[in-house]
Amino acid sequence: MSLKGIRTNDKHIKNLANIVEGNRSILYKKEDLLAYDCDGFTIHRRLPRAVVFPNNTEEVAKIVKYCHEHDLPFLARGAGTGLSGGAIPLNGEVIISLVKMKRLISVDFENRRAVVEPGFVNLKLTNSISDKGYYYAPDPSSQYCCTIGGNVGENAGGAHCLKYGVTTNHILGLEVVLPNGEVIEIGKDGIPDAPGYDLLGLLTGSEGTLGIVTKITVRILKNPEAKQTVLAYFDNVADGSQAVSDIISAGIVPAALEMMDQIAIEAVEAAAFPVGHPKDIEALLLIEVDGISAGIDEQIHQILEVCKRNHVREVKVAQSEEERARWWANRKTGFGAMGAISPDYLVQDGVIPRSKLPEVLNRIHEISREYGLRIANIFHAGDGNLHPLVLFDARKPGETEKALKAGSACLQACADAGGSITGEHGVGIEKREEMRFIFSDEEIAAQTDIREVFNPKNLLNAGKLFPTPGRCLEVKKEEKSVTAS
Amino acid sequence: MSLKGIRTNDKHIKNLANIVEGNRSILYKKEDLLAYDCDGFTIHRRLPRAVVFPNNTEEVAKIVKYCHEHDLPFLARGAGTGLSGGAIPLNGEVIISLVKMKRLISVDFENRRAVVEPGFVNLKLTNSISDKGYYYAPDPSSQYCCTIGGNVGENAGGAHCLKYGVTTNHILGLEVVLPNGEVIEIGKDGIPDAPGYDLLGLLTGSEGTLGIVTKITVRILKNPEAKQTVLAYFDNVADGSQAVSDIISAGIVPAALEMMDQIAIEAVEAAAFPVGHPKDIEALLLIEVDGISAGIDEQIHQILEVCKRNHVREVKVAQSEEERARWWANRKTGFGAMGAISPDYLVQDGVIPRSKLPEVLNRIHEISREYGLRIANIFHAGDGNLHPLVLFDARKPGETEKALKAGSACLQACADAGGSITGEHGVGIEKREEMRFIFSDEEIAAQTDIREVFNPKNLLNAGKLFPTPGRCLEVKKEEKSVTAS
Repeated sequence: MSLKGIRTNDKHIKNLANIVEGNRSILYKKEDLLAYDCDGFTIHRRLPRAVVFPNNTEEVAKIVKYCHEHDLPFLARGAGTGLSGGAIPLNGEVIISLVKMKRLISVDFENRRAVVEPGFVNLKLTNSISDKGYYYAPDPSSQYCCTIGGNVGENAGGAHCLKYGVTTNHILGLEVVLPNGEVIEIGKDGIPDAPGYDLLGLLTGSEGTLGIVTKITVRILKNPEAKQTVLAYFDNVADGSQAVSDIISAGIVPAALEMMDQIAIEAVEAAAFPVGHPKDIEALLLIEVDGISAGIDEQIHQILEVCKRNHVREVKVAQSEEERARWWANRKTGFGAMGAISPDYLVQDGVIPRSKLPEVLNRIHEISREYGLRIANIFHAGDGNLHPLVLFDARKPGETEKALKAGSACLQACADAGGSITGEHGVGIEKREEMRFIFSDEEIAAQTDIREVFNPKNLLNAGKLFPTPGRCLEVKKEEKSVTAS
Repeated sequence: MSLKGIRTNDKHIKNLANIVEGNRSILYKKEDLLAYDCDGFTIHRRLPRAVVFPNNTEEVAKIVKYCHEHDLPFLARGAGTGLSGGAIPLNGEVIISLVKMKRLISVDFENRRAVVEPGFVNLKLTNSISDKGYYYAPDPSSQYCCTIGGNVGENAGGAHCLKYGVTTNHILGLEVVLPNGEVIEIGKDGIPDAPGYDLLGLLTGSEGTLGIVTKITVRILKNPEAKQTVLAYFDNVADGSQAVSDIISAGIVPAALEMMDQIAIEAVEAAAFPVGHPKDIEALLLIEVDGISAGIDEQIHQILEVCKRNHVREVKVAQSEEERARWWANRKTGFGAMGAISPDYLVQDGVIPRSKLPEVLNRIHEISREYGLRIANIFHAGDGNLHPLVLFDARKPGETEKALKAGSACLQACADAGGSITGEHGVGIEKREEMRFIFSDEEIAAQTDIREVFNPKNLLNAGKLFPTPGRCLEVKKEEKSVTAS
């Protein structure tokens, strides 16, 4: 039987194909599925059962209901740029790809909000509203291709989140298909601070384990009247770190405050967007301030003073929008640039109190020596969000495992410094065990119990986010009362 | 038997008294309990079974465990300033008063955070750190006496939340006693954006139904370099509303943007802090901008221009900190000032899209005429958070009910305009039924299911926040699958 040209004996694939309007509704052949066996975290791979491409909420709900009724594991996928493996079909899931749901539904300039479908690309939103003087703040480095639905799932950050906050601070409403196929709306009409429990916050950053977002109301911001960007080169990391600290202490809230270390500079200068950074400096700061023109000059003056006080070798202010854009392209392609100096790399994502920056960077250098692997650092210094990039060669036996261990050791260092194991990339499958660095069993159980409410059959993106499979609520309660008495 | 001088036959009271160190550990006599029969929402009253005063987390956990084991309803209470009845012992609860837990545990200026006990008074935090140039942003009008624990429960707002966000944006970590007495920590060491589900957001604003907060890590902010305050008088509300809209459209984010209408002005001028507002104007705006000095003057200039363009009758800039403080005292005591012109008042708390301001204010005037009750408006115009104050006389038969209905009609108007039924006062017992204005049965069930996870016996603050008692998870799921098939 050939339905829509589909040739397979898998009745579920035929039935799922039938749910979706149009012809390019499903992929199921091995050669087509290969592109979906991992996301931006490429170290683990598994083929999905199929990839379905719904056109609208109704179709998503029908697909989910079908999976729910037939006990088929399933998960949602946006652009697949996630860095912690959240979209990898660990259990041979049916992948629900949201790339066809990419409409900008509406923009309400007066009340500063826009409604998009989950497959809408992050940067397209800013591009669509910039002529009216507005933009969308969260700017992950992958913003030219990542989707806002994926950003919601991972609570994505970005360089400018220091001043403007991460994705969760910009989400006003969600339409969600629950794991049983029911559709609910959260954050009615985009009004913030709705009564009741903060389901908006709960869903945002839940890494696709509680529901599938099908419509998103986001906050849009008025473009700042002015922005200025500073590039500063330091001979040593300690001076650069102190400058970061001093800028914040001065009461300045930069829009962005990024740092790159020497290995990172080597990589970005060898890659697609070199800007001529000196290669013998230990640290580079990229600092941006924005706001009303009158205040900017004074802030830039203060920043230059702070840099000088901390023995900066060279510091300059971008002289044109073109120069600013080049500096940012150099920074934002930094992860990919590692390819220019290493066959493989593993990016980590830890958070530390800003004051612990020098201490933790030292520890990362030690880890690098211990494991005999180079570790580059490109990161959001202003909010203490580190990105150690462990360079390795997967072709060498055992080196992948060594890289994973070195990455984990970096996260342990962050946790030991009173920090956290992810700032914006999520836990996915990559950091499941590292959750134990910061959460007790009880604290993890409090979370898996919540998953149980939304996702009782655990068919939706199972095996992600937590170190152990969620235990049944009732069993847990019994176990506890036994130990308590 | 007299234990700590306690004379009662209620063994639970004796046992609870024994849990708490020291002598002033429990109240149980009717005359003592009278002060605890309501909170800032005085329309419903009920006596608690007892009021216990624990000294530390351990004692709170023991009290909770005792209540859990003996099926005693219980709830937590801070200063009792809540405006929606969240701390009223509807079921004759054991009240756990947190007023003795009022320590400022630590301040970490470098990483901008402080740790407090739940009974610590909001304003005391700013007072404790202001000499170092820091402050705590959320500023409910009751900040001189309300507690930060209570602020977390209600996700309290305040005049300056327009720019700085409500309580949830300033909470970095919580220690929580769960309804079974277990203690968990959320937001380890105050590092924001922790992985896993956003339990911090979930607990904040959960109105004391998911757990009792015993330690709170909050964000502290550097004092702005400068602030300036503008007072503007408008002959009619439409012009005032348009000015609000124009200020925001100009890209200015004021720290505060408050409005009062004619009846409100009559009240504040008749009360404790008159400042000589003309009584024949229809609207007053109180606008504050803060930031670095260099930018402030330019913003003030723009604001004055906007006011003039919108036919302001008179506009002035505060000439001293003393003048600014007087204007704010006049505004912040506005609710209480109603006592000067009415025996009783009911304050409501709706949120609307800013663009709907004139339309909804008109509707509130209609409601006032329909019910024959005066309604004053004092509100956070910048973020569309209305506070209609329904004036009534409880001694007149039926007038309380009429006031409640008029208040509810105001919330219906907000919901109809695409808004919400509470911005910062919470739902409590006051707005339980109004939850239906904005949530479907499924959306309410998604929330009560979460309560079920934390609070399965529903002993903690039962009967609040939701229109119907939470249904059992399993029963609900069965019901659903039956209707679905």
